[in-house]
Amino acid sequence: MNKIDQQNIQVGEIANGLPLTIPVYRLKGDGSGKSVYIQANMHGAEVQGNAVIYQLLEQLKNLGLRGDITLVPYANPIGCNQKSGEFTLGRFDPITGVNWNRLYHYNPELVRRFAGQSDSLSDQELRDAFKAALVEEVEQRLNGPQHALTTGKRIALNLQRLAHQADIVLDLHTGPISAKHLYCPEYARASARYFNIEHVLLIPNEFDGAMDEAAFCPWWQLQTQLKRQGRDFEVAIEAYTVELGSQERIDLTEALEDAQSILSYLNYQGVFVDAPYQPKNMQRHACYLKDYVAYYAPMGGMIEYLAGLGEHLKAGDAFARILRMERYLSEEPLHTLRFDQDAIAILHFASASVNQGTELYKFFTNTFDL
Amino acid sequence: MNKIDQQNIQVGEIANGLPLTIPVYRLKGDGSGKSVYIQANMHGAEVQGNAVIYQLLEQLKNLGLRGDITLVPYANPIGCNQKSGEFTLGRFDPITGVNWNRLYHYNPELVRRFAGQSDSLSDQELRDAFKAALVEEVEQRLNGPQHALTTGKRIALNLQRLAHQADIVLDLHTGPISAKHLYCPEYARASARYFNIEHVLLIPNEFDGAMDEAAFCPWWQLQTQLKRQGRDFEVAIEAYTVELGSQERIDLTEALEDAQSILSYLNYQGVFVDAPYQPKNMQRHACYLKDYVAYYAPMGGMIEYLAGLGEHLKAGDAFARILRMERYLSEEPLHTLRFDQDAIAILHFASASVNQGTELYKFFTNTFDL
Amino acid sequence: MNKIDQQNIQVGEIANGLPLTIPVYRLKGDGSGKSVYIQANMHGAEVQGNAVIYQLLEQLKNLGLRGDITLVPYANPIGCNQKSGEFTLGRFDPITGVNWNRLYHYNPELVRRFAGQSDSLSDQELRDAFKAALVEEVEQRLNGPQHALTTGKRIALNLQRLAHQADIVLDLHTGPISAKHLYCPEYARASARYFNIEHVLLIPNEFDGAMDEAAFCPWWQLQTQLKRQGRDFEVAIEAYTVELGSQERIDLTEALEDAQSILSYLNYQGVFVDAPYQPKNMQRHACYLKDYVAYYAPMGGMIEYLAGLGEHLKAGDAFARILRMERYLSEEPLHTLRFDQDAIAILHFASASVNQGTELYKFFTNTFDL
Amino acid sequence: MNKIDQQNIQVGEIANGLPLTIPVYRLKGDGSGKSVYIQANMHGAEVQGNAVIYQLLEQLKNLGLRGDITLVPYANPIGCNQKSGEFTLGRFDPITGVNWNRLYHYNPELVRRFAGQSDSLSDQELRDAFKAALVEEVEQRLNGPQHALTTGKRIALNLQRLAHQADIVLDLHTGPISAKHLYCPEYARASARYFNIEHVLLIPNEFDGAMDEAAFCPWWQLQTQLKRQGRDFEVAIEAYTVELGSQERIDLTEALEDAQSILSYLNYQGVFVDAPYQPKNMQRHACYLKDYVAYYAPMGGMIEYLAGLGEHLKAGDAFARILRMERYLSEEPLHTLRFDQDAIAILHFASASVNQGTELYKFFTNTFDL
Repeated sequence: MNKIDQQNIQVGEIANGLPLTIPVYRLKGDGSGKSVYIQANMHGAEVQGNAVIYQLLEQLKNLGLRGDITLVPYANPIGCNQKSGEFTLGRFDPITGVNWNRLYHYNPELVRRFAGQSDSLSDQELRDAFKAALVEEVEQRLNGPQHALTTGKRIALNLQRLAHQADIVLDLHTGPISAKHLYCPEYARASARYFNIEHVLLIPNEFDGAMDEAAFCPWWQLQTQLKRQGRDFEVAIEAYTVELGSQERIDLTEALEDAQSILSYLNYQGVFVDAPYQPKNMQRHACYLKDYVAYYAPMGGMIEYLAGLGEHLKAGDAFARILRMERYLSEEPLHTLRFDQDAIAILHFASASVNQGTELYKFFTNTFDL
Repeated sequence: MNKIDQQNIQVGEIANGLPLTIPVYRLKGDGSGKSVYIQANMHGAEVQGNAVIYQLLEQLKNLGLRGDITLVPYANPIGCNQKSGEFTLGRFDPITGVNWNRLYHYNPELVRRFAGQSDSLSDQELRDAFKAALVEEVEQRLNGPQHALTTGKRIALNLQRLAHQADIVLDLHTGPISAKHLYCPEYARASARYFNIEHVLLIPNEFDGAMDEAAFCPWWQLQTQLKRQGRDFEVAIEAYTVELGSQERIDLTEALEDAQSILSYLNYQGVFVDAPYQPKNMQRHACYLKDYVAYYAPMGGMIEYLAGLGEHLKAGDAFARILRMERYLSEEPLHTLRFDQDAIAILHFASASVNQGTELYKFFTNTFDL
Repeated sequence: MNKIDQQNIQVGEIANGLPLTIPVYRLKGDGSGKSVYIQANMHGAEVQGNAVIYQLLEQLKNLGLRGDITLVPYANPIGCNQKSGEFTLGRFDPITGVNWNRLYHYNPELVRRFAGQSDSLSDQELRDAFKAALVEEVEQRLNGPQHALTTGKRIALNLQRLAHQADIVLDLHTGPISAKHLYCPEYARASARYFNIEHVLLIPNEFDGAMDEAAFCPWWQLQTQLKRQGRDFEVAIEAYTVELGSQERIDLTEALEDAQSILSYLNYQGVFVDAPYQPKNMQRHACYLKDYVAYYAPMGGMIEYLAGLGEHLKAGDAFARILRMERYLSEEPLHTLRFDQDAIAILHFASASVNQGTELYKFFTNTFDL
Repeated sequence: MNKIDQQNIQVGEIANGLPLTIPVYRLKGDGSGKSVYIQANMHGAEVQGNAVIYQLLEQLKNLGLRGDITLVPYANPIGCNQKSGEFTLGRFDPITGVNWNRLYHYNPELVRRFAGQSDSLSDQELRDAFKAALVEEVEQRLNGPQHALTTGKRIALNLQRLAHQADIVLDLHTGPISAKHLYCPEYARASARYFNIEHVLLIPNEFDGAMDEAAFCPWWQLQTQLKRQGRDFEVAIEAYTVELGSQERIDLTEALEDAQSILSYLNYQGVFVDAPYQPKNMQRHACYLKDYVAYYAPMGGMIEYLAGLGEHLKAGDAFARILRMERYLSEEPLHTLRFDQDAIAILHFASASVNQGTELYKFFTNTFDL
């Protein structure tokens, strides 16, 4: 049985001076394989990842490990604990409105610098030096003047410091009410088949502040830059946002399924000495990010969500109804919403009552098999 | 087809001066039967009652009506529209914390006054005079100095003015995540069998500020007082809080079921000339309010809710698990919760992440068949 | 220099399992005088009491103490840290809406029991036994089943356990935007002159859940009951809510003033061996709680608060204006509000934008010199 | 006396179906001068601009007008009315966290198109055509599919449609607790001297979603592009964000001062036939946006704000203290904060209780006289 270490790292302080800490669990591999970083619950209501980390630990403690594994539940101690009414208000900083998952660091200058200096380095040397530089960038900010860091930035940088040290990064999220889906960088699409996740979103090489992007963008940008200079350099990192289903829900049985999906991917990546995990035989639907379409409420009202999670709609199918009881006499009180393309309903809003302009559904369109 | 009238009554103003209005729908009966008042959505997230009113209107417009019927969806225009994150924060005034459903008016002095003056009045005269006095009490407050009314009181009094004019009052609510259940005053338990609701909570003659209590308490108190004086006087009013299921959810099919349940009760009360609605043949479990037990989280953590809505538990059965991932190494990370009595799980908290002391479940105990 | 002890008591756990603790500071007296309990910041935005405790500690460490002194800053670790936007949302539990200062415990049965058994006890014996019983009542609840305690109740009981052990209890609060004022039980009015507080609210013997009431009500009820039985028994406890001014504000200079006001009162109570603190020579305006009048916004709009804090108004004086810019053409856009009695403006709402029915001002009326 | 027209434009619908409307006031000029657009209260707590519009209307109705003037108070009917506790939570959409003032539209493609087609057009023709195109861009989005617009985008576009029709655009904001300051595009610095505002922030030609940027960026970009092509074309528009002081505060006397400041600027721009308004003789401190420095709380605690609004600090001066009462014994409970450059304190956070990483102060550094 593997030894598991726990370290509680401090990532902030609240107003009454109590420290904000995050538990970090670590298992050591024999050094012959890729290292792994997995975090959960960066958004406060997205709790199921903690259960998945529980189930992963239950499995990992009995496996032969080639690479080191780091697991971080409760990654955001402010978000986890921010209630407003019964629900967890943990998608953004309650003070500033900033999405907690848009605060990771990326310095394009670093890529330019390495692309300019790489000639003398072997691929392995370049990888090692670049990885060290990424970690150092983050540490410099963490160790710089404390008055230059926002609350969210300090949390994000602490996590990013851990993530940059790994070869594989998984950020466990959920949608509001959602089917499982995977955010996968386009270059890693072949790997997406090793997760047991039916819906795969292929994302381009653009940094928008999220953890997965912070992990892979520098590497992908470096590859692109070196390619232009005539050198083939493989992206050394894979990073994914794994959307586990719906928020505000713990299901340990489902979590075991999701743990097995992740273990299947890690097994494919050679993280384990000898492990049985294999991907399920299933159809995987892919969609480019540009074809991932949000549908906003065309009027205010009460929504009956008709399209099920993962449901395949034909153009013109009804997917929701809006009830407007203040207009029972003056106009039709029930409006049926239809989408004008073939689509897969991936997620919908968590509440039945919406303002005009609230995001109701998100759809995969122009899908294809992976 | 019956004529439906709509009136929009103003119940307040918001900071930018826009009026807060409530739509009131009315159907006239032939005057030979009891009048009915039904409202929905006093708590902002409890939206399903609006769908039930929709389905009721669809039926009522084609029925022969003996009594007048008044229906009020969106009863609380502040609560309906108060978002905090994705969910509706409409259980209490966001400024004061006061529960919107604890602001109705009751003046015990009025009962004393009528009990002292009733000798010369026939039962019918007493009923008419008392009903008029209840309405007048509310109107006096509404027409008094505006600077004496809080935001919530003004909304409540406007609704109560409508409710006191009816013989039957239904306040449509939902639980957080909940089985259907009915709050029924003990004196009206015989009537509870005409709703298609499996779980019935029998409540005593105590005023705690809610609409149902505001409607029946004065009458019940008057009956009790007259009884002491040796006069038998029947409570002229029936009032219920109908808990339709879970909040933040619109389901028009379910709403039709619930409309039929209400129509069955109204039919039994002779509201319709000739209508087909009959109660379903079902087992109805009753519980006294004192035996309705809340179970608070004995520790902070992430909850897996195991007991289903309406599930019958034996003493010692597991009903939930608490995951505490920060203690994976230092103690058992999974705690199983068991309840020490036989019970029916009626509702549970809406979020999976809880502080120590959050209400997790509410249970019927010491239940009996109605 | 006195020794100061610190104990951190745990009063709860948040969702990610981190403990909620409160710092308790204690100084020992020589046992010849009354003991003192002072807490601050039960409502999250009311922070100035923490600064007053700081200034008290700075003084107390150099004084000769007869009685023990216990000081508790940050009394409510949830309220202190609950942000919503820039401001602290700490007046009520964000999940339930329950005011954190309405959750203290009072069991009238205990008074009845002691009044019935007191004949054989001397005054001192009765005091000791009753005090012990009050503490035990609270401890029983704290040590009972954890699933019977709400989040707020657990915090309140932990504080109340400390408070019942003292002879003098001060709960440091602030208003929203407020003049200093003191909640003083009617029986203790003579003592109110020893605080440097211009406005004194005299409150009756009714328990409404607050800390000061929880501390003095049992004693006052016991006195009243024994009086009826023909025995004169002095209330052994004095308890006050001290309203220090406005919320969301730390002012260490002002805090020193307030510390000296408290030290003057404690000096009068014989808590110190030999200390210089004397009350200021000032006019003190008293008002009965029934004459403390709230004025609610008679319409929605933007408020210009004209009456200063502590300002004395004559009947008919303007105290505020409401701007309604959506009606610039359709009606008078500026409304002047006047109050119809002589009054002292004690506090006003914290925001300039109000719904119809928001509490704008609170006024002392029918005031008299103390 | 000028005729004032009011139009209420609908910018959305809330969940219970009630329309969200904004009052638009218009005065017609004789067509010989620049037209003006002024809006207020896009952020809910920033109410003072409504009072300034009130005072502007009181003046404007008696002035000879060359250009048309459009004034929009309560520009954001959701933000104005979003309470959470006593304060207004109106800086961002409570559902998404998106800052309401980052949602305006800018299409750089339009600039490229016009720069490519401008040869045949006179300056006046180019101005007219480009202005028409900007309005049309916005209208196309507003008139396109409703399900493509978020709640905030719909509000922003409705306002932007009005703004693009004017030659001068003023967006009235406030800071949290703040000195008056002006966001001024670098090209318009000469005009900044005509406002009675002591602090001027010079901002570059970068679009970040705000109203002022949306108004001037297209014109400035077009100028820059044409310059590269060898044509001198003057920016036809001036647009400013005017920060009026502190949020949550209405002061009609101060509003009259601010109205006179704006009238002085408009007079300079030739908007009036013959008007007396002249700028005050005052020192105006300018600072480039890159030198506008935020200072974040280096630890959690309770803040005493020492530096006054507009106060000039020397490097090393104390500007705030942090009280940490949970560490009274274990470390120094009072920490003094000092800034390492000469600076002007422009604004500070609205609450005294802060997490580590909360923005405490914003400072002008490297200031110079305008």
